[in-house]
Amino acid sequence: MSATPSRYEQFHDFRTRMNERILGDDASRGMHPDGSARVGGTLVTKRFFSLDAQAYRDGALPARTKELLGLAASMVLRCDDCIAYHIDQCIRLGVRDEELWETFDIALIVGGSIVIPHLRRAAEFVDACRANSNVSPDHGA
Amino acid sequence: MSATPSRYEQFHDFRTRMNERILGDDASRGMHPDGSARVGGTLVTKRFFSLDAQAYRDGALPARTKELLGLAASMVLRCDDCIAYHIDQCIRLGVRDEELWETFDIALIVGGSIVIPHLRRAAEFVDACRANSNVSPDHGA
Amino acid sequence: MSATPSRYEQFHDFRTRMNERILGDDASRGMHPDGSARVGGTLVTKRFFSLDAQAYRDGALPARTKELLGLAASMVLRCDDCIAYHIDQCIRLGVRDEELWETFDIALIVGGSIVIPHLRRAAEFVDACRANSNVSPDHGA
Amino acid sequence: MSATPSRYEQFHDFRTRMNERILGDDASRGMHPDGSARVGGTLVTKRFFSLDAQAYRDGALPARTKELLGLAASMVLRCDDCIAYHIDQCIRLGVRDEELWETFDIALIVGGSIVIPHLRRAAEFVDACRANSNVSPDHGA
Amino acid sequence: MSATPSRYEQFHDFRTRMNERILGDDASRGMHPDGSARVGGTLVTKRFFSLDAQAYRDGALPARTKELLGLAASMVLRCDDCIAYHIDQCIRLGVRDEELWETFDIALIVGGSIVIPHLRRAAEFVDACRANSNVSPDHGA
Amino acid sequence: MSATPSRYEQFHDFRTRMNERILGDDASRGMHPDGSARVGGTLVTKRFFSLDAQAYRDGALPARTKELLGLAASMVLRCDDCIAYHIDQCIRLGVRDEELWETFDIALIVGGSIVIPHLRRAAEFVDACRANSNVSPDHGA
Repeated sequence: MSATPSRYEQFHDFRTRMNERILGDDASRGMHPDGSARVGGTLVTKRFFSLDAQAYRDGALPARTKELLGLAASMVLRCDDCIAYHIDQCIRLGVRDEELWETFDIALIVGGSIVIPHLRRAAEFVDACRANSNVSPDHGA
Repeated sequence: MSATPSRYEQFHDFRTRMNERILGDDASRGMHPDGSARVGGTLVTKRFFSLDAQAYRDGALPARTKELLGLAASMVLRCDDCIAYHIDQCIRLGVRDEELWETFDIALIVGGSIVIPHLRRAAEFVDACRANSNVSPDHGA
Repeated sequence: MSATPSRYEQFHDFRTRMNERILGDDASRGMHPDGSARVGGTLVTKRFFSLDAQAYRDGALPARTKELLGLAASMVLRCDDCIAYHIDQCIRLGVRDEELWETFDIALIVGGSIVIPHLRRAAEFVDACRANSNVSPDHGA
Repeated sequence: MSATPSRYEQFHDFRTRMNERILGDDASRGMHPDGSARVGGTLVTKRFFSLDAQAYRDGALPARTKELLGLAASMVLRCDDCIAYHIDQCIRLGVRDEELWETFDIALIVGGSIVIPHLRRAAEFVDACRANSNVSPDHGA
Repeated sequence: MSATPSRYEQFHDFRTRMNERILGDDASRGMHPDGSARVGGTLVTKRFFSLDAQAYRDGALPARTKELLGLAASMVLRCDDCIAYHIDQCIRLGVRDEELWETFDIALIVGGSIVIPHLRRAAEFVDACRANSNVSPDHGA
Repeated sequence: MSATPSRYEQFHDFRTRMNERILGDDASRGMHPDGSARVGGTLVTKRFFSLDAQAYRDGALPARTKELLGLAASMVLRCDDCIAYHIDQCIRLGVRDEELWETFDIALIVGGSIVIPHLRRAAEFVDACRANSNVSPDHGA
């Protein structure tokens, strides 16, 4: 709605656009400048993305615990986009800030000070998610 | 009790002995062959170990969830000893096998096939813990 | 057949036994000492193992190139079991030693000296595979 | 030629400029504001860069296979610049998009979902390379 | 002082602002848009940050050697912000450029070519630190 | 001298044997069971090993500081053999135990609790080195 998309919107826009580029049909992948069709993900790629989504569904562990597991794993592996994604999912599932911070602590202790720059950006993204969910309450838990 | 310690006992024996070597007093550290005192962990080392223990205590998240977070983080970072430790803690806190396997799944999806050899050893260690807790039910939840 | 299995046989025996523990039916998983059923891999686990196998099949790239890719990836991620597995697959698919060593070089340059201990064990495993394939030529390319 | 360099041009410009800063002579390294000479790479640094180039030359394996190995290794180690560099090299050596995507698949399976954000940026960079090679066909295979 | 902060200033501004967000009191953390208090770091988080600072103080090894150790560790773990932080600390403690480059070499040899993109940004940051310390000599050793 | 080699001796024996397998001439590499020549390291492999040795020589930084850098880098990358190698080198160069432990602390803080199992084995290896250097004082500093 605003001229400059927020960091939260930028994150989701790029993610959505590239998932279409990877998983979509010919039309969503577009063409190379020479008119040849752009190649996208294979059947293996698509099955991996599908399995990834399946792993986080409610089971013996509830989805919110699984998202916390994904968040801790992403933090110790130090992937900002993965951290942002799982923070967003956690907040949508009603995880409280105190729970996020205790998850950050586990990642910090297991992964060490090398995690700290990612913790700074995670803290910033928590605020971006909370700001966004205020504007768009339908993203809430 | 038996002549050959089980894998479960070997794991705990080495861990206990070396923690005494690192964190203990002069007597538990022993001497070098030339009679000089063995140096052990510094104040920083000891504070880190203490903080490590503190991070897994009940808080906004219960200890069992934190142990699952530590387990997932250890699996994607691929440390067999850390995986074994957290499996043992999870089982002591009453985590069910189905919950362990769904945690393994998150680690497998996030961390990829490189996790599989650790998953094999983790499955073997779950069986070792269950076998041990049968013999020593006081280790149960 | 011999009293002491070779390193090559040990590698395959553990791998086969634990894959049955993870992917097999109730009988192959066995029971806990208290008589309760051992839990194994979930549907997600099984699908991941299946997808893993699928990714290495002949496609735009031949299977042998894909095994070399898996080998290089395993070396820079420093997983001895994964390295051993892909060396074995490469040799079964007719990859020559010179090709293995140039793959080791790429991993060494990309991953650095931290790869060297794994290179030592990889060289030892190549010899174990060649020795084994001599005994069991049906494993050859 | 345009006022704003493309992502492809930015990537190469920074790489070229900093390689001169690291490997070049006094003039290409420039001076600190206080007039003192800027120090650059040592003989070890220069030899490493040279060895890095040497490892990818045609040998028992052709250069294009080695670039695919470098690409797979870079993806599982999750370095966007390294991924971009090897994609560019692969395309210059005539690797087809289908081959790139099967290489991405191996990296995705070995390295897990943590690779996905890098896969998104890799897909975007493939398109940037193809767009650039259209404009500058001398960069083609 | 200038309208556009330098890369050096941006680095420190973000670091300072987020450390206040994580470690500060209620006022420095601010509020979510809905008026609820922003949650920050726990006691574990704060103790970890404190222990991190403590580990680099003069001891059996001087602080400057410890900063070089932190720099080498950060380079092989490939964290640009950590590399920048330790370069800045080293320069404040009087480490000479030749010493920085030999530390980069150890990281490059141990960690491999995957370190090179970080080496490029490290070289650029050394220049940014030297330029800044010229303007603000109080940051010098 | 004893029937069972110590851990220290085992470490060096395997290292020496495999370096000959990798870097040596035809005679030291031996033959495959079918009589074909065993292939060893390429020119790239040999140059990398040579460059690795060169990087740790006295320069702007003394060799002992470089070995401490190699030790810290090896600990955060969690390679037991590399840790053992650098501990041995440090002790030969006269590094005191207090200096080793402060280096372990930096690695522990930077790398987190995932480093702890490697710290336990490092502490055990320090004792093995000290015990060995008592028997073989020519290995001392």
